[in-house]
Amino acid sequence: MSSNHTIKAIFFDVFGTLVDWRTGVAREAEAILKPLRISLDWTAFADAWRDQYQPAMEEVRSGRLPYTKLDVLHRRTLQKIAPSFGLETLGANELDELTLTWHRLPAWKDVSAGLARLRKRFLIAPVSNGNIAIMADLDRRNDFHWDAILGADLARDFKPKASVYLTAPDAFNLTPHQCVMCAAHSSDLKAAAEHGLRTAYIARPQERPGVSEHAATLPVDFTARDVEELAGILGC
Amino acid sequence: MSSNHTIKAIFFDVFGTLVDWRTGVAREAEAILKPLRISLDWTAFADAWRDQYQPAMEEVRSGRLPYTKLDVLHRRTLQKIAPSFGLETLGANELDELTLTWHRLPAWKDVSAGLARLRKRFLIAPVSNGNIAIMADLDRRNDFHWDAILGADLARDFKPKASVYLTAPDAFNLTPHQCVMCAAHSSDLKAAAEHGLRTAYIARPQERPGVSEHAATLPVDFTARDVEELAGILGC
Repeated sequence: MSSNHTIKAIFFDVFGTLVDWRTGVAREAEAILKPLRISLDWTAFADAWRDQYQPAMEEVRSGRLPYTKLDVLHRRTLQKIAPSFGLETLGANELDELTLTWHRLPAWKDVSAGLARLRKRFLIAPVSNGNIAIMADLDRRNDFHWDAILGADLARDFKPKASVYLTAPDAFNLTPHQCVMCAAHSSDLKAAAEHGLRTAYIARPQERPGVSEHAATLPVDFTARDVEELAGILGC
Repeated sequence: MSSNHTIKAIFFDVFGTLVDWRTGVAREAEAILKPLRISLDWTAFADAWRDQYQPAMEEVRSGRLPYTKLDVLHRRTLQKIAPSFGLETLGANELDELTLTWHRLPAWKDVSAGLARLRKRFLIAPVSNGNIAIMADLDRRNDFHWDAILGADLARDFKPKASVYLTAPDAFNLTPHQCVMCAAHSSDLKAAAEHGLRTAYIARPQERPGVSEHAATLPVDFTARDVEELAGILGC
């Protein structure tokens, strides 16, 4: 375990680590489409949409597409999966409204209190692939109080590209080693560590049962059950 | 006066409009240098440093220098003015510490309460030439709660360049006309209006008495005595 006294900032992955995208998208999509007499497997719909997430970002990471914010990618991938769910006749307004489901996701129950504790001692910021508009709406929905929204929009690229991990410490005038990246996904922490950040792992097996990790697959600096426990470990 | 019902976000200039850089830099510099038995005209020092602000940013705006955050420009311009104040023998630590005076500026007394009222109805964000680290520290010092820190670091350029005014609405998925730029400087509002934003003017003649504006030099959408009054005008 690292000594904690040089840590100045805690960065967070958001989708899965802090908020429950699967339940959130499923419920919000149902609320939008049920009044239109549309019924489908809402959780399968959320999963299918999420399955398009990495391939869509890969277009940007590879340089085939200039930086495109996640809201725009979500709108495109929604149109791509719509026929599989009989949604190909939806109008632009409904597709726009569905895209906003990603702005209304509920946080896991430990997050709001845990972040408030951490903020007493550290700078805290999301370092997510979600764009600023999504992050700002999630903050309102879940009562987060970030010091800044860092991540994809600032770096104009997506994790695990180096620039996302490097622009975040620099925005706070910190070295990577003064920052902890917290995530429920080992791949995120692997890339963060490669760029000099410290790492905190929180397992969220409930993110997508049967698929999500139960434990880190690499050595990390801190492991916690949830954000409240992480706050305690870091002396908050 | 514009109809208000399509306004979604209020953007703020910070130095002068929300915080008192002149008193702040003067007092903080005195607190750092007096223990070193250095005495000088602290307000003249603050003014001289501020006088280097526009020329330093012009190097970036003109393309002669790649984007360089304000903390770095402040550090360079401090070194430039140091000999005029007998400070040429200061070490790197003292120069670094002085550069942080810009992170510790006090807000005008109406600001914190006014922003809290505005945030109940609108997204609020600084659109400043100050970098994210300065903004985040000013928020802590003055109890602001922004939805996001927009401005120079996100646009990688300085006002009044177009990209700063255009990246801010886009970060919130808004059109410029859904956003109000609030500033104590007519030149800032002129540029904001040219790029489609609405404008709110707050006179701060106390920013630099004898130099600062007492009234807008162009037509604006809203005029208020302070941020509290602006909140009232906008129905908060």
